[in-house]
Amino acid sequence: MSEVINFKKKFTKFSELWTPKILGQFDNYHLKAAKMKGEFVWHSHDDADELFIVVAGVLKICLRDKEIILHSGECFIVPKGVEHKTVAEKEAHVLFIEKAGTLNTGDQIGSSKTVSQEEWI
Amino acid sequence: MSEVINFKKKFTKFSELWTPKILGQFDNYHLKAAKMKGEFVWHSHDDADELFIVVAGVLKICLRDKEIILHSGECFIVPKGVEHKTVAEKEAHVLFIEKAGTLNTGDQIGSSKTVSQEEWI
Repeated sequence: MSEVINFKKKFTKFSELWTPKILGQFDNYHLKAAKMKGEFVWHSHDDADELFIVVAGVLKICLRDKEIILHSGECFIVPKGVEHKTVAEKEAHVLFIEKAGTLNTGDQIGSSKTVSQEEWI
Repeated sequence: MSEVINFKKKFTKFSELWTPKILGQFDNYHLKAAKMKGEFVWHSHDDADELFIVVAGVLKICLRDKEIILHSGECFIVPKGVEHKTVAEKEAHVLFIEKAGTLNTGDQIGSSKTVSQEEWI
């Protein structure tokens, strides 16, 4: 049986940037948490839409034709196949939901930011 | 292309209780919002796990063998097939995520709380 997931407490459990942690699973989807600061890499996910929810800080999601700015209490869905890059000037705490097994760097498999084995916390 | 979803703003767009509104879709899943006050009906969803996130107020999720208390910034996943009933003493604002087409009252199809056509806002 699952447990109560407190987002603030979960974000105290790790400090690494750009390293998705798995908080929970429903059906074949993972709820993940990541601390973001600086720039990620441009990438896309061929077969997975990705829902981003900001819980602290400000997150910019760059798309090729526009930029999305997300504050705490806001979310955005990046459709499958759409190239995107997340950017945060100051550290942002971000939840995201996507199909289990979705690689954080999508089609950029060999990136320095690729995390092939995501940890549950 | 999807848009920024601001949770607080979305909750100003409706007042009905126990009436799920659809905020967004990723893959075949819906992000929904509902205002809850009072008691819902006991029910279960045979083929859908359900992720609840509280954004304002306090939500109790009764299971047959325990009660889960969720405050703002907390979430809980009710596994498929598990009977549950949501209860809120004061109005709570709740996000939830589940497979598109999941009926709010699950196996209690003819309940007075059943909403067969959920509205996008």
